[in-house]
Amino acid sequence: MSNLYLIRHGIAADRGTYQKDEQRPLTPEGDRKTRQVALTLKQLKIQFHCILSSPLVRARQTAEILQSTGLSSRLEILPALAPDGDIQQWLDWYGNHDKTRDKDWALVGHQPDLGNWAEYLIWQKSADVLIVKKAGIIGIKIPKQGMIQGNSRLFWLTAPKFLLGLNER
Amino acid sequence: MSNLYLIRHGIAADRGTYQKDEQRPLTPEGDRKTRQVALTLKQLKIQFHCILSSPLVRARQTAEILQSTGLSSRLEILPALAPDGDIQQWLDWYGNHDKTRDKDWALVGHQPDLGNWAEYLIWQKSADVLIVKKAGIIGIKIPKQGMIQGNSRLFWLTAPKFLLGLNER
Repeated sequence: MSNLYLIRHGIAADRGTYQKDEQRPLTPEGDRKTRQVALTLKQLKIQFHCILSSPLVRARQTAEILQSTGLSSRLEILPALAPDGDIQQWLDWYGNHDKTRDKDWALVGHQPDLGNWAEYLIWQKSADVLIVKKAGIIGIKIPKQGMIQGNSRLFWLTAPKFLLGLNER
Repeated sequence: MSNLYLIRHGIAADRGTYQKDEQRPLTPEGDRKTRQVALTLKQLKIQFHCILSSPLVRARQTAEILQSTGLSSRLEILPALAPDGDIQQWLDWYGNHDKTRDKDWALVGHQPDLGNWAEYLIWQKSADVLIVKKAGIIGIKIPKQGMIQGNSRLFWLTAPKFLLGLNER
């Protein structure tokens, strides 16, 4: 088993203020909350073999915060994590990392894609039944060998407020 | 929408030490962790219209801790929450509370039943894909009107360690 953490980007600037959606950055609040989430993950002793991020600014910034908090020494951009990306590209990518299938990974991306990816890994179909807040986390246990899709299990789904609790200021 | 919290009982005494499974109480550690979970729910301002509990001692004790922490003024025993209980009995029970369908509820019971109930409410079938630790929580949003099974969404799934984080001692 290895753990896959699907992490949604933090709160980003409004659509209207940027010409291109992919350029929207985290707001100060988004930056702050994402740092708190990252710090809590660190305190929980979570470590990622690698952080894979959507190429969009708000996701990349989120991934960089996770990395700078010490959750991983590696960060790669995976174009398939952009909105409407194809999970098969990640499965192919992951298939080339078989030797590290006992490691934990983070995928940083967008909704509804992350929820749909998780649903596909767990039930082999997407149904929009997971509610994933900004800077929220989905935790999935994936089998070390064999098919991942349809053979993974959900061990965590949290909004920042349930993770940070009273720590949040 | 109302929120349904399915809460697994805390850590209980070993099977060998009690003649009847249903008499096994929480251990001191189970009691302590359950109280910490309850306190965190209280701090998150979660309130239940009613706590429904399995009749088994370890579940009743868990439900009583939730109640004594101030999460609800009402606690009822629902025999269907005992191991291998039929979710239809809860659906029937809940159908008689239509006027309170905007309220939040807690169901305290056992695994794999709670996970299976949750899966049935969300996907209309049970598949054992949710990992629910002792004193762990499943949070589901159920529609205010119409069919619940197949029309609910998952907003939270947590083990105590992810909820308590550094608060746990």
